[in-house]
Parts: sequence; structure tokens; C-alpha cells
Amino acid sequence: MLSTMQDVPLLISRILTHGSTIHGTSQVTTWTGEAEPHRRSFAEVGARAAQLAHALRDDLGVAADERVATLMWNNAEHVEAYFAIPSMGAVLHTLNLRLPAEQLAWIVNHAADRVVIANGSLLPLLVPLLPHLKTVKHVVVSGPGDRSGLADADVQVHEYEDLITGKPITYDWPELDERQAAAMCYTSGTTGDPKGVVYSHRSVYLHSMQVNMTQSMGLTDQDTSLIVVPQFHVNAWGLPHATFMTGVNMLMPDRFLQPAPLAEMIEGEKPTHAAAVPTIWQGLLAELTAKPRDVSTLGQVTIGGSACPPSLMQAFDKLGMRVCHAWGMTETSPLGTVARPPAHAVGTEEEFGYRLTQGRFPTSVEARLTGPGGERLPWDGESAGELEVRGPWIAGAYYNGPDSEPLRPADKFSEDGWLKTGDVGIISPDGFLTLTDRAKDVIKSGGEWISSVELENALMSHPDVAEAAVVAVPDDKWGERPLATVVLREGASTDFEALRTFLAEEGKIAKWQLPERWTVITAVPKTSVGKFDKKVLRRQYAEGGLDVTQL
Amino acid sequence: MLSTMQDVPLLISRILTHGSTIHGTSQVTTWTGEAEPHRRSFAEVGARAAQLAHALRDDLGVAADERVATLMWNNAEHVEAYFAIPSMGAVLHTLNLRLPAEQLAWIVNHAADRVVIANGSLLPLLVPLLPHLKTVKHVVVSGPGDRSGLADADVQVHEYEDLITGKPITYDWPELDERQAAAMCYTSGTTGDPKGVVYSHRSVYLHSMQVNMTQSMGLTDQDTSLIVVPQFHVNAWGLPHATFMTGVNMLMPDRFLQPAPLAEMIEGEKPTHAAAVPTIWQGLLAELTAKPRDVSTLGQVTIGGSACPPSLMQAFDKLGMRVCHAWGMTETSPLGTVARPPAHAVGTEEEFGYRLTQGRFPTSVEARLTGPGGERLPWDGESAGELEVRGPWIAGAYYNGPDSEPLRPADKFSEDGWLKTGDVGIISPDGFLTLTDRAKDVIKSGGEWISSVELENALMSHPDVAEAAVVAVPDDKWGERPLATVVLREGASTDFEALRTFLAEEGKIAKWQLPERWTVITAVPKTSVGKFDKKVLRRQYAEGGLDVTQL
Repeated sequence: MLSTMQDVPLLISRILTHGSTIHGTSQVTTWTGEAEPHRRSFAEVGARAAQLAHALRDDLGVAADERVATLMWNNAEHVEAYFAIPSMGAVLHTLNLRLPAEQLAWIVNHAADRVVIANGSLLPLLVPLLPHLKTVKHVVVSGPGDRSGLADADVQVHEYEDLITGKPITYDWPELDERQAAAMCYTSGTTGDPKGVVYSHRSVYLHSMQVNMTQSMGLTDQDTSLIVVPQFHVNAWGLPHATFMTGVNMLMPDRFLQPAPLAEMIEGEKPTHAAAVPTIWQGLLAELTAKPRDVSTLGQVTIGGSACPPSLMQAFDKLGMRVCHAWGMTETSPLGTVARPPAHAVGTEEEFGYRLTQGRFPTSVEARLTGPGGERLPWDGESAGELEVRGPWIAGAYYNGPDSEPLRPADKFSEDGWLKTGDVGIISPDGFLTLTDRAKDVIKSGGEWISSVELENALMSHPDVAEAAVVAVPDDKWGERPLATVVLREGASTDFEALRTFLAEEGKIAKWQLPERWTVITAVPKTSVGKFDKKVLRRQYAEGGLDVTQL
Repeated sequence: MLSTMQDVPLLISRILTHGSTIHGTSQVTTWTGEAEPHRRSFAEVGARAAQLAHALRDDLGVAADERVATLMWNNAEHVEAYFAIPSMGAVLHTLNLRLPAEQLAWIVNHAADRVVIANGSLLPLLVPLLPHLKTVKHVVVSGPGDRSGLADADVQVHEYEDLITGKPITYDWPELDERQAAAMCYTSGTTGDPKGVVYSHRSVYLHSMQVNMTQSMGLTDQDTSLIVVPQFHVNAWGLPHATFMTGVNMLMPDRFLQPAPLAEMIEGEKPTHAAAVPTIWQGLLAELTAKPRDVSTLGQVTIGGSACPPSLMQAFDKLGMRVCHAWGMTETSPLGTVARPPAHAVGTEEEFGYRLTQGRFPTSVEARLTGPGGERLPWDGESAGELEVRGPWIAGAYYNGPDSEPLRPADKFSEDGWLKTGDVGIISPDGFLTLTDRAKDVIKSGGEWISSVELENALMSHPDVAEAAVVAVPDDKWGERPLATVVLREGASTDFEALRTFLAEEGKIAKWQLPERWTVITAVPKTSVGKFDKKVLRRQYAEGGLDVTQL
């Protein structure tokens, strides 16, 4: 029996129309580095998005679901692209300007982007790429920056403002299938080619509703959100779409992501909310310590991307900025969990512990834990397993180019279609997730999992240890066992037995998890973004390059 | 180009599973009239919903999308039925216990209900109906009440608790199409047969998300919601579903809807939110005035169903209960608008004016105004037209029985599928709706509309006028013109010229809208629910039964 409800698709054009009419006076404020930031109302953004869509279709010939890429900072024009491109039926492809040049070129070619809209300040990055881009016919430039590098390029070059000027300020947005592609984002995996995640109108719409629910960010039109998380990074956590649903004002830092201008924009524009990764907040905290400013309006800070250190959370609490942890990934749109403590913990000693977890799953994200043998593990706050998730804004495949079938690698998707997150963690009976390790780093010992991160944190709390990395090494009896690689502080002497005892006593590590294999190294190898590069250590061990003591 | 997102349907079973695990400790508290109310956790509700589904399928043979009706107050068992019936794939049909018996029987037969779950206290209403119910095979009785009337009934009778006891507390909920019917509700139209609105899993799910958005009720698991609006009245405005998404505690009054027990449950259980129609609040206010109680926890009160008089809103403000207006109807699930003032008005003199409007449309509800000649009218805060709406939780048809096509009467649905609400109003440029009349009561004069309600309110503000009703009567020149029918206060004398002058001067009615036809009546005829019955006045005029003075 079918319902008698109207069959109305969930489309991004609806969010745009709503935001630019009912919340037409809300503002997108873009930092310019000058005395006055640039201000544009949602109504103006809506009108200009319509103009951009006309220009893309009529002047640049963008048709059907062709891809239009952006190489842009967070600013009003990027918001216009966010809405114009999917609303007209094309696909927004946000390019991560932090990626190595050859990866960027690979991604643009893989997505077959027809147009790139770029900020003038990013042309030094784009120009050297252009000879390698096979499908790009047009470059549209917006904002300040030297254009001279484009003179010899084999593409048509347009000025953003010239392109849209005089175009009609409304557009008859097509009634699309809500499952059609709206936007795409590539994950920068450490191994293999980057993988494309393609969001649908449906997934973006539902995700935006979730962001506005009280369990998530829960902002209103009385709020201003400082969106530091880049628009090229998982849709800026869905904030540009979500704010258009509720009229939340956006404060956009453009290229001014350094601590000093961030502190300045908080003091000057008085945002009530901000969203960024922990590194940004570390820098901001140092800046505010060195040069105090009035940041009292900023009551809520969403932190994701990686776990927020407890000390940072406490430091922000003291400044009146309440940190709220969230977890997600490119494949999860990204809202997977948000750490709002449950009612019974609010105001009690338990509260801080809840805030340190990754958070609780919303209704639309189903979660399960899979153990080392593929078995389902209970939500008992103790059993660690790989987190798998399912839901309408969770990826079920990767994009494999315009003419190929979607990719469903078995290490990323279960047979029944769930996303394997690659994260290992525990879930409490009331649904709070705590991540303990990456699946590739966890030590699989006798059918149980040992968290490398837990051992590392315990080791690094010892006064003699400067850094420590723990990796899995093959073991005849147990399958795998942990190898502890330790960087000692200057003047400290090697006493593995003492460290092992410390782990058991002070680190509260279970006896069966204690490493037998130990080695001292001069520094932990790091990736380009500063994470421990455990691949290198595992290879050194395999090749016999480490001097290992067996206890 | 299709997205790579998972294709996960939006199902009520997901809301149930989420609420009964992640929010398992939240509570449904049901008033019993005794010292202690009855308390049941969401986890228990979830387990019992699974048991009910097993019983309905295995013991009562409910299959596929058969209809299971409820004739129940707001209580924990009704919440169990709300989740069990749609989650198993059947259709929940909530029966409005305020309807006349013959209408109820007609509705049950039209929906072809197979089972009725009834509260024991409502058997006096159900028992006389049973001989007229053609499809009902089973009656399930829950809660106190004399069962003896069922002894001779030609149906199988079951005790709710006996039926579910011992059944498994989990159920493998089927993966349904999200557009499948989940629940149905009949509108009690004043003319013609009642019309069935059939909600889908998709519409209920999206509506629940909206209720939890900050623009709407925006509650959290720290809240307790006193749900006075009946579960048989448009799904209790979506609250039972929405609370399971966020862990909001429910306080259910069962049959104790009188002012005294309501005041008692507010004082005793300290809800932070309540939802009801204005009449309930009028009664509660009188009760609190006569016998003050501590109602200080109740910060937010959602009022819908009909407009809240300004005086009532102000009186509640003084008690610390902030009234929030909402507008909707059975056909809109019901959330159509919510009157949260825009940021710029908060704390200003404008704020109260915004709160008196019907409110602002959420992203998923598109609205347009259609004028007397079918033309689209602007959102200028002045042009009055019939409100038409479109969206994923808005009806596009009526149910026409198990074997017939859906009904799309032209006076209820536009050719392009929008719902004609039958309400006439204006919309401000920032999307706030103010309803001025019902379409059937508006006076269509020379291609413009005159609001009967506006004229009545202005007339009733004159000291000599006790009551006044204004109806459209045929006019050769203008098509229709207003007829003012006035009930004078005791001792007042008839002076229509003075009233007309008063309308123009004090009532600020435009000259062309002033009535020429006047009559004095002894009382305005009323419908069974106390509304002005203008049909009677129109008929009396047509039959020459009124003594009309022409000015």
C-alpha cells in the first residue's frame, strides 16, 4: 500500500531557494585581510548562484552531469559554486589544494572535470598543472591574484565577475532525481590511487537536516559560524548547506588561516560557533595566550578530523569555548558521531569523559563492530572491533571514472554493503564511540586485538620516553605481537624491563598485551602531514634493520 | 551520474531501534490518576514493540500492509503500537475518539482495519460500534476498564499484556520501501465523507528530523515533553517519533486531560515542553489562576490547531511559559510553519508580532499564494491568497479504500500536485505566514478578497457587539459582498451606520471592504465543536430568513 504523500525529491536547489528567500538577510562574511571584511546576503548569494549557473550552461556549455571543479578557499564565491553547480544538475568537484600536484592532476583527469573555478591566489598551484589536465576546457578566476601565468595556457580563461554580470538572477532549477550525483570529493589514501566519493542530492539534504538537529551542531539564525574547516574537505562538514537551511550566518576565513587573523576575526565578527581540526585550535590557543583577545562570543567549537587532546579541551573550556568532538570521514559526508554528553552525565564528573569520546551516532547512522575473526562484537564499552557504518549519507562504493562501474574493494565495503571505516574502537551500551586505533595498525594477537595507540600513549607518559611507536610484527605462536620502538629523552638510559613494568602498573595495560620486543630508535618516521609512518618501521623490522631486544 | 552513496531507506524501524538502544534509558511516563505515574524506558518500549509485532503477525495473522487501528489515549502502549505496526510493514490507523459513532464506523470500514487495539476506558465507545465494523476480526484491550461489553461481540478479544507476554523481545524488522504506507489518519471534514491521509515511512522520518531541528521544537534528551495533543490527532504532531530520535522523555496524560490533573502532572513531573491546542491552555490558565502551582520548568509550549489569542500568549509569558505558534493540518503531517521570530526581531518590539503569526516554513515545505483568479501572489505581507504547499510530508491525494485509486479532488489539489490548504493568508517577504480566513468563508468581491475573520474581529471589538459573523452573499455588481450579522449586547440599540463608521475608523477596515448589508441575530449558529457555522447563515440569507438592512 503506497502512501498518499507527494513525491517531492530532496534537492540542493530547494536548500538554495529556501535560504536565499526565507533567510535572505543572513550573511556570508568573507575575510579579506583588510579593515572591512566582505559581506554578502544569502539573497545575493542566491541571485549570483543563478547567474553562475546561467554562465556555466550558456557560455561554458556545461551540460547534464558534467563535473565542475573548484580550487578555492572558503569564501562567498565558493558558496555560490556549492549551490549553483549541483542545482543545475552538474557535479561539484572540490579540489584539495593541499594534495601533491601529480595527485591533483590525476584526480581532475579521473573525474573528467570540464571547468575549474579557481581563486586568483591559488593560480600558482593551478598553472603548472594545466598542461597535464586532459578534460579541462575552461578556467574561471575569482578574487585577487596574478593572472599572468594563464596567458599561455591551452584553456579558455574567464573572470568570475565578468562571466556572471548581467545574467538573470533567477534560474528554473531542474527537478532532478534525488539520487543523482551532486558533489564529489577524493580521499587522499596513503596507499594506491585517490578514491572518489560521490554525494547525492539526497545525501547532502539529509546530512544538512542532521547538522541542524539539536544532537549535532544545532545552530539557529541567531548564530554565526566561523567555518575554518575547508570547503574542499568533505563539504566543510556540511556547514554551507546546513546554514542555508536555518539562516546561520557564515564567517569565511578565505586564505587567512593563520592564528593571528583567526583571532582577529573572532574578536571582530563575534562568531558563536566555529568548526576546525585540532591543529588550528592549538595554534589559536597559543596566539590567544601570547596576545589575549575578547573571544567570549565563541561558545561552541566543533572539532573533528582527529581527536582533540584533553588538555586542549580544558584550555578552551577555561576560555569559555566549549569543545564538541565529532567523528567522520570523507566516506561519511562526514557526520558520523557527535559527542554531546547524555542528559544523566551533564553537570557531573562523568561529563568530561563523554566529551572525550568520538560521540554518539545519530538515527541515520547504523554502527557495528567487527572483531578480528569477522564476528560481531557487543556494545559493551570493552570489546574492540573495526567500526562499520551504514546509512543514507554513507558511501557504498567509490567512483571509478565516467565510463566504469563503481569500485567496491573488499577491504572498504562488507559483502552486505556496509562501509568498513578502517577505525578500531569500542562502543558503550548507550552508543558512544571511542576510537582506539586504525585497523591497519592494530596488533592481532591470538584472536584478540591490541591497540598500538594505547601502548604508545602509555609509553609516552613515561618521563624517559620522548616518542614511541608500536607496530605489529609476525609471531609464530600468536600470529602478531607488538614491537615497541622508543625514542629516549636526552640523558635517559635504556631499561626495557622498567618500561614494561611501568606499562603494566602506571599504564594499566593488561599483562597479555605487554610487548616482548623492544628497540630504541632515534626518531619515529613521519608522513608528510606529521603522522607516525608505521609502514617504514614494519619494513625496517622485516628487513632486519632494527636492533631488537626480546624480554 | 549516480552517487556512490548507500541506498538506505528511511524507515520507522530505524527510529525505533535507535531510540530503544542509544536512548534506551529515556522514559515514557504515563499518568494513571494514582500517586505514582507509570514509567517505562525507551528500551522497554522497544522490547515490547517487538513483542507486539510478533503477536500481531503470529497470533492475529496480520500480514503485509494490513491496517491495525488504535482507539487509545496517549500512553506507553500507544507508543508501542506506533512503532510496532509500521515497523513490521503493516499500517497504523489511529482512530479519533471524538468523532461521531457513525463516522468512526465508516472510517474503520473504509480503511478495512483488521485489528483494533483499544484502551479499556474507551470500550463504551467501541462496543456499540462493533456490529457495524465489517473487517475487524480482533480487538486487543489495554489498560483499566470494564470488559463485559465485549462478551457477546462477534470478534476475537485479547488482553494486550497476555498477548505480548513471552514473545521474543527482538524482531527482524523488514527492509521496506520508504514510500510504503506507515500510518493513516482521516480528516473530519464538515462536508462529505471523511478523507484518509496516508503517511509513508519516508514522510514520517523526514518530518521527525524536522521536528528535532532548531527551527522547530528543537528538544534534546535533557527535555521532557508533555504530549497533550492526542496521538489520534495527526500523529501527536510527530512527537512520539521525534522523541525517539533524540531521547526526549515523553510525559503522557492518558485520559486525564482536565485542567487539574494537567497542572498536577506539570508540577509533579516537571516537563520542559508541552504541546496542545489553545482550548487546553485556556483551561490550564484558569486552573493555575484559581490554584497556583509551580510550573516553572515548563519553558516552551507549542500551540497549534488554531491560533492562540494574544492575551493567552501574554498570560503564559508571565508564567514563564513561552508559547510558540505552529500551523499545520492532517494533510501536512502536520508541521507546516513554526513561529520562531527571526534573529533581528529577538528582544525587540517586533518580536511579539512575529510570534502571533502562524510562523515560517521549513526548507522542506514550499509555499505559494493563489489569488481569486488563480494568479500567483507575491510574498509582500499584503496580498491575501489561498495557501498552497508542496513537500515530502505533504499529502498529494486521499486514500480511497483498499481497491481504488487515490482521490485527487480539484478543490484540494492543484493540477501540478500542490495541496490547496483551504486557508487564506498573507506571507511576509521573510516567509512568515499570517492566516486571515478560511477559503470557503472569504468574500470574493470584484476580483479581490475580503477576510470575514478580520471584519468579525473588528466588529467584536465594539462595546455594543457580543458576537458577529460575516458571510459572503451574492451581489450583481461585485460577485460577492459581505453580510454582517451582529449579536448585540443586552441594552444596546441597533445603529448600523455607527458600526460601519467604527469599522472604518477604529477597525482600520478599507472603505471598499465595509459591509452594506447588516442584520441583527440572537446568536451565531455554531458547529458541534463550537466554531461559527456560516453555512447556516448563508442558507438563511438565501431563503430570505434574515431581516437585512441595506446601508
